[in-house]
Amino acid sequence: MREIITHEERVYDGRVIHLALLDVTLPNGSAAKRELVRHPGAVAVVALIGEDVLMVRQFRIAAGQVMLEIPAGTLNPGEDPLLCAERELQEETGYRPGALESLGGIFVAPGYTTEFIHLFLATGLIESRLAMDADEFIEPARMPLRELVAMIERGEIQDGKTITAALKVARRLGI
Amino acid sequence: MREIITHEERVYDGRVIHLALLDVTLPNGSAAKRELVRHPGAVAVVALIGEDVLMVRQFRIAAGQVMLEIPAGTLNPGEDPLLCAERELQEETGYRPGALESLGGIFVAPGYTTEFIHLFLATGLIESRLAMDADEFIEPARMPLRELVAMIERGEIQDGKTITAALKVARRLGI
Repeated sequence: MREIITHEERVYDGRVIHLALLDVTLPNGSAAKRELVRHPGAVAVVALIGEDVLMVRQFRIAAGQVMLEIPAGTLNPGEDPLLCAERELQEETGYRPGALESLGGIFVAPGYTTEFIHLFLATGLIESRLAMDADEFIEPARMPLRELVAMIERGEIQDGKTITAALKVARRLGI
Repeated sequence: MREIITHEERVYDGRVIHLALLDVTLPNGSAAKRELVRHPGAVAVVALIGEDVLMVRQFRIAAGQVMLEIPAGTLNPGEDPLLCAERELQEETGYRPGALESLGGIFVAPGYTTEFIHLFLATGLIESRLAMDADEFIEPARMPLRELVAMIERGEIQDGKTITAALKVARRLGI
């Protein structure tokens, strides 16, 4: 079922994403084009304090709205996802994790982007402020996991990684 | 918290995705750049026959592997997501839905792509074959929802929309 890349044209090299046009050979031997966004990958963290989840609100220009999400961030090239999760959690919430446990991960849109998000559960949080990135405007929020799950069930949360990670944790905790 | 777009440069116009470079004004009045992928949106369907979910296996070049996913597809411009869900389900599984119910939707990566996936639950399936797209090589699969959820819990499913939609349905059905 595999497709073989026969030629790659780099269309754009940006700060976060890179766009390539691929010529591929299909399983039946015929040729096709593929549009591919290369992305360094990311992390996202369900951080629990007791029964509460630490969340962030931020304007997302691609969605055209302020969204409620779990803390997350893009990997630096070659960065260990665990270290990235620790850093992003500190930057966005002012807490660092006592323990980080993998919740697996997701390809966000395997039809056209390489982005893979490593999902983590953070517990034993310790207050520890870090400076934010200069162009991030993030408002912290905090709510019971049970309430977050109810919002997901009502369709009020629309961020893919947040739903995936929160529902995975809810299953583990029997919520 | 909003960002205002002051200038847009179209970098690439493709078959499915369009890449734009935006100049934006941040909430504090300073300027920043944003890389934005415009995407027409998509649908994905949890299709139940009794306790089984209809799935598809396909090679995903962005993930570099064959992935197990729920049936899904890209919206044609202006297309009603319900009609798209019906069509894609038929094309990929050979069944059309007796009933389609919304499961909400997800922004797959609101940091850089406009793609929103409308999620549906399909029941009352009726056999009805449609021709596939010429460059799609899709292998149908079928498994109990309970088994799909177990695979998700073990980290064996890595497609974001599949995990989101399957866990939403599992909660509804008390699985």
